[in-house]
Amino acid sequence: MAGNTYGKRFQLTTFGESHGEAIGGVIDGCPAGISLDMDLIQFELDRRKPGQSKIVTQRKEADEVRFLSGIFEGKTTGTSIGFIIENTNSKSKDYDHIKDIYRPSHADYVYDQKYGHRDYRGGGRSSARETACRVVAGAIAKQVLKELKVTAYVSSVGDLTVTKLYHELDFSEIEKNPVRCADPVIAIAMEDLIKTVKKDGDSIGGVITCVIQGVPVGLGEPVFDRLDAELAKAMIGINAVKGIEFGRGFAATRMRGSEHNDEILVGGTTKTNNAGGIVGGISNGMDIYFNVAFKPTATLMKDQMSINKNNEEVIVQGKGRHDACVLPRAVPIVEAMASIVMLDMYLEQYGKQGIDK
Amino acid sequence: MAGNTYGKRFQLTTFGESHGEAIGGVIDGCPAGISLDMDLIQFELDRRKPGQSKIVTQRKEADEVRFLSGIFEGKTTGTSIGFIIENTNSKSKDYDHIKDIYRPSHADYVYDQKYGHRDYRGGGRSSARETACRVVAGAIAKQVLKELKVTAYVSSVGDLTVTKLYHELDFSEIEKNPVRCADPVIAIAMEDLIKTVKKDGDSIGGVITCVIQGVPVGLGEPVFDRLDAELAKAMIGINAVKGIEFGRGFAATRMRGSEHNDEILVGGTTKTNNAGGIVGGISNGMDIYFNVAFKPTATLMKDQMSINKNNEEVIVQGKGRHDACVLPRAVPIVEAMASIVMLDMYLEQYGKQGIDK
Amino acid sequence: MAGNTYGKRFQLTTFGESHGEAIGGVIDGCPAGISLDMDLIQFELDRRKPGQSKIVTQRKEADEVRFLSGIFEGKTTGTSIGFIIENTNSKSKDYDHIKDIYRPSHADYVYDQKYGHRDYRGGGRSSARETACRVVAGAIAKQVLKELKVTAYVSSVGDLTVTKLYHELDFSEIEKNPVRCADPVIAIAMEDLIKTVKKDGDSIGGVITCVIQGVPVGLGEPVFDRLDAELAKAMIGINAVKGIEFGRGFAATRMRGSEHNDEILVGGTTKTNNAGGIVGGISNGMDIYFNVAFKPTATLMKDQMSINKNNEEVIVQGKGRHDACVLPRAVPIVEAMASIVMLDMYLEQYGKQGIDK
Amino acid sequence: MAGNTYGKRFQLTTFGESHGEAIGGVIDGCPAGISLDMDLIQFELDRRKPGQSKIVTQRKEADEVRFLSGIFEGKTTGTSIGFIIENTNSKSKDYDHIKDIYRPSHADYVYDQKYGHRDYRGGGRSSARETACRVVAGAIAKQVLKELKVTAYVSSVGDLTVTKLYHELDFSEIEKNPVRCADPVIAIAMEDLIKTVKKDGDSIGGVITCVIQGVPVGLGEPVFDRLDAELAKAMIGINAVKGIEFGRGFAATRMRGSEHNDEILVGGTTKTNNAGGIVGGISNGMDIYFNVAFKPTATLMKDQMSINKNNEEVIVQGKGRHDACVLPRAVPIVEAMASIVMLDMYLEQYGKQGIDK
Repeated sequence: MAGNTYGKRFQLTTFGESHGEAIGGVIDGCPAGISLDMDLIQFELDRRKPGQSKIVTQRKEADEVRFLSGIFEGKTTGTSIGFIIENTNSKSKDYDHIKDIYRPSHADYVYDQKYGHRDYRGGGRSSARETACRVVAGAIAKQVLKELKVTAYVSSVGDLTVTKLYHELDFSEIEKNPVRCADPVIAIAMEDLIKTVKKDGDSIGGVITCVIQGVPVGLGEPVFDRLDAELAKAMIGINAVKGIEFGRGFAATRMRGSEHNDEILVGGTTKTNNAGGIVGGISNGMDIYFNVAFKPTATLMKDQMSINKNNEEVIVQGKGRHDACVLPRAVPIVEAMASIVMLDMYLEQYGKQGIDK
Repeated sequence: MAGNTYGKRFQLTTFGESHGEAIGGVIDGCPAGISLDMDLIQFELDRRKPGQSKIVTQRKEADEVRFLSGIFEGKTTGTSIGFIIENTNSKSKDYDHIKDIYRPSHADYVYDQKYGHRDYRGGGRSSARETACRVVAGAIAKQVLKELKVTAYVSSVGDLTVTKLYHELDFSEIEKNPVRCADPVIAIAMEDLIKTVKKDGDSIGGVITCVIQGVPVGLGEPVFDRLDAELAKAMIGINAVKGIEFGRGFAATRMRGSEHNDEILVGGTTKTNNAGGIVGGISNGMDIYFNVAFKPTATLMKDQMSINKNNEEVIVQGKGRHDACVLPRAVPIVEAMASIVMLDMYLEQYGKQGIDK
Repeated sequence: MAGNTYGKRFQLTTFGESHGEAIGGVIDGCPAGISLDMDLIQFELDRRKPGQSKIVTQRKEADEVRFLSGIFEGKTTGTSIGFIIENTNSKSKDYDHIKDIYRPSHADYVYDQKYGHRDYRGGGRSSARETACRVVAGAIAKQVLKELKVTAYVSSVGDLTVTKLYHELDFSEIEKNPVRCADPVIAIAMEDLIKTVKKDGDSIGGVITCVIQGVPVGLGEPVFDRLDAELAKAMIGINAVKGIEFGRGFAATRMRGSEHNDEILVGGTTKTNNAGGIVGGISNGMDIYFNVAFKPTATLMKDQMSINKNNEEVIVQGKGRHDACVLPRAVPIVEAMASIVMLDMYLEQYGKQGIDK
Repeated sequence: MAGNTYGKRFQLTTFGESHGEAIGGVIDGCPAGISLDMDLIQFELDRRKPGQSKIVTQRKEADEVRFLSGIFEGKTTGTSIGFIIENTNSKSKDYDHIKDIYRPSHADYVYDQKYGHRDYRGGGRSSARETACRVVAGAIAKQVLKELKVTAYVSSVGDLTVTKLYHELDFSEIEKNPVRCADPVIAIAMEDLIKTVKKDGDSIGGVITCVIQGVPVGLGEPVFDRLDAELAKAMIGINAVKGIEFGRGFAATRMRGSEHNDEILVGGTTKTNNAGGIVGGISNGMDIYFNVAFKPTATLMKDQMSINKNNEEVIVQGKGRHDACVLPRAVPIVEAMASIVMLDMYLEQYGKQGIDK
């Protein structure tokens, strides 16, 4: 109800502030009897972790997850899975200079107005640090729904765009470059761009493309809880995301129906896949693909004008650590949320008994 | 749970098929003591109604709503509001030719696969006819939250695009042209384009822009139930919608932070509004604006290839009635869902006691 | 959220006032492909109907349900089922004398205080007339979960109590007497008692026992959504209910563990069934049984002291129609809610695919 | 959805097994700006703690709560409150003898059947150890809703019953005796009875009465989410509870309406309070009171017959630590759940802005 829970059947509830003692969460509704590979969970966390490469923020966090319940003898028990990730490198003092200041395009001002009591340390609850919890849950969801393959990659940074469609790319390239771009040539240019932007103390936006393969026909509920509507909610709910488009997306608005319609072939597949694998809010068995738009990070290493708590004009100093481009670290978050949505919808359609153990 | 309910505090549950006896719904959580103007509700329904102009489908439906409960002596009682809209012009026979056929880019195939039992008459539950119920609930939400002004308009049809920003437009123009475009000059070109497309038996997509004014600071819950995440779910949940972007949206992905950040001014407003009125998932008091992408309608008056129930290749004949462009009729639906989301979030923040009666 | 919806997977949302145009509801989450026997639904409604015998209220209502959606060619489609029951005998004038008066032990006063705007006609939303909608949904739930047998009967009226346990009784006797008591001898005494109470213009309470047979092991979720907790919520949510006890119930509070524990036998059944078929909130495969306590009806044909809207002392006149004992009509309501709860829990454990069609 | 969350507005999600690393939870929806007295929270935990007196189990647990988020500078921030309680004295080895055995009237058998993978250590998730988390949330709810006074006490153990009504008792006596009985004379007899039962290796049930004072008129939603229905769900959801009755409860079933009805007095109070403060599911401003029936604890220090995993007859040895009577430790749990329900309902009626800070 108050916004810290995602999902109806596979439910993740998270807690924790950027600079509190720990972040963590509870996963409810996970089917019993699933063998969990803890290394895979840590692998996903490491992909999101700060300090993993030179183009991301240099804050150091171990990001080690400690499971407290719901797993016994290596398998899920069907009861709620509690977990925490301690904050080991939370330098609250770094934030003393913004204690009474509202940073532009951060949530400082709206939190203070909404709650009247703000945890100013590193953004508190509004910090993207919380997304580590989503990565944990997503890594579990991935292991529950083994038949699905969820892959995200950076498809644009600023004006640099991968023009090849997803099926023309080699997904094994993604983890080979620090940008997590599926096109190794453009990846190099992107890395250079991010370094330049970082040197400028500035930030830059971009697009992540997500592809879900191996989806059965029939996932998604009609009317309000459509598969694409749920994916949209999950993606727009990621920090810095400002847009989403499915299949041909905004380009489809310029097409005619005779051009956009996907002819159905014998066997139920479609000749084209302009719909992006979802028709009437329900998966049609084709690959699902969508683009997620990230705005440039709000934290800059440049001075900016703003106001303080007393409604006085102030200069917000550009100092501390920042991500010049969040996209490389956001790739596992997009995959995590997509996995959670797919599992949630799968459970609605097939039930816990429908899970292959 | 099964997808026919939207909202947590102001809840709409709908039922009904395109060619069943009636469609309808239940609105729960509406504050008590609100005087309802029934003409305003019918006005919104009439804007969505088929047959309202030459550029929309010529199916004739009275679309008269009958309220069965929750309103007494002209005011809401605080209990659930039940309503129905009878289907008066549901020619089921029109659909005999598609009884065993799956129309391309319609939900026929996925419904049959999902449920194993399909109401083939006019799309059944997947028909956009259901959206009339959302318009009813939206028209009530609008009357509850009087201080907000929700305005939607067609901002592009195919390649024809309104280039002026929303604050440069005169919203009183919207209802003066059948396209519901806020720019009267482009509206004429759009109308011509739709007529041409219709003559071709084809269809065309476009974009609706929605603007919400008078929003207090602090609406939206952090993390998952962000205001933009909820608006995204509500919009992607409208038939034929394939994308959404807030504020600068996809354009923001090509911007630098120093360009995109909205400097905060004394008083709490921002110098620019690239964020589109939502920061960290919470309203910041500036105008909210977003674009919604509609694909071209799937129904064509052209023959198309597809398959039937027996998995045999068939020709789907182009006949019957259709909307060459759904956008003019979708404008009130976008406004309705936006109003419902805003009221739902308002109730979370201020409670029922916070409603001005 | 606002209280007019029951269930998470099989969801019933109801609307309607005692003396409005109609009552009705929406059932969401019903599995597709279930053949529905409409006569069975009407049969259950007739058991709840006023005027069915001399010992119940003489208000005449046809109580005919009209289904508007979700059923096609005699089978459920998996989409939401909308239905209405018109109010044909709502004599609002009967209530003019209580327009400004709060009847003792009715909801008049609390509704007025809560909502500030009260539908005074026959109790409005607080009337037990709303339970007809629950009976409709329950009659559908019964048909979905064919392997379960849900049976309720009157086990006490005032001081007259059936002392035999449920398994010593012949359930085929229940429908043979107007009281719906499973013991035909005590039924006669009960009928006499109700007639005497009615003649006095008074009312009387009693107990309904409910038995659920054929339950698989494993229904119910641990911790909060226990099977017994959900049944308790559903039963206490019925008008006039003031208590519930499972298995040995309050008598168990006076027992020792060595006496109360149910020894487990080879095969998993238990030697005794003091638990009433639910252990740790989860069904153990034994018969579920529980008692539901009904207070005497608040409406009397006697004058009573109370206050009016202006906070002045008034006499509430005893006139109109009333049930001297609601229990005979409440039997199908108890069965309906029990069936809804069981199906809801069944769907959590086995999913829609687990339903036998 | 999967049962580990209680509440809609003030939500508690718990995790943790009796003998896992830790138990804990997340509280969502707590209003911001509430000063929390940590000692009061620990005080409530200490009331539930094992080893607190000679008549309860001698397992030693520090039961110290560690808050990880949602509280900053001593006040709630409005974001989710995460907390854990480490299990410091979980002797898993104590349970090796029941690893493959199903203890009578415990949840061992149903968990194994339901999940196919059971955490056998001390009951795992079905252990009442989980209720410590409810006590934490309840202690916070109590501090949010300061105007309410929630008091529970033991009103019967076995055949020993407090016959005085709650308003004839001195609540300051409750904490003065280890039984937590409000009548000091009967408390002594109860203590003796529990000691005797314990010496026998047996257990005994009883009743806890809960009284809620200072309740405003209007809490509770009509139809399904009635205040009494929610309290019933919350109470039956406590381990070992088998029944609940509000106001006169089961005794009301033997009364006539003319005797049971509560005459309304000038000012809106009632002459009698047979209803127990709830009419039509909504609080009427009078004291709320209800009785909760606890069965005798299932764990005995006597040998019992049962079966093992291989469906073979076995003897379950009576050894280890146990509570001969859980009621003294259950008093704070009843208060906690009552407080949570009341706050949840209060937030529905008045919103977060209605909370006095």
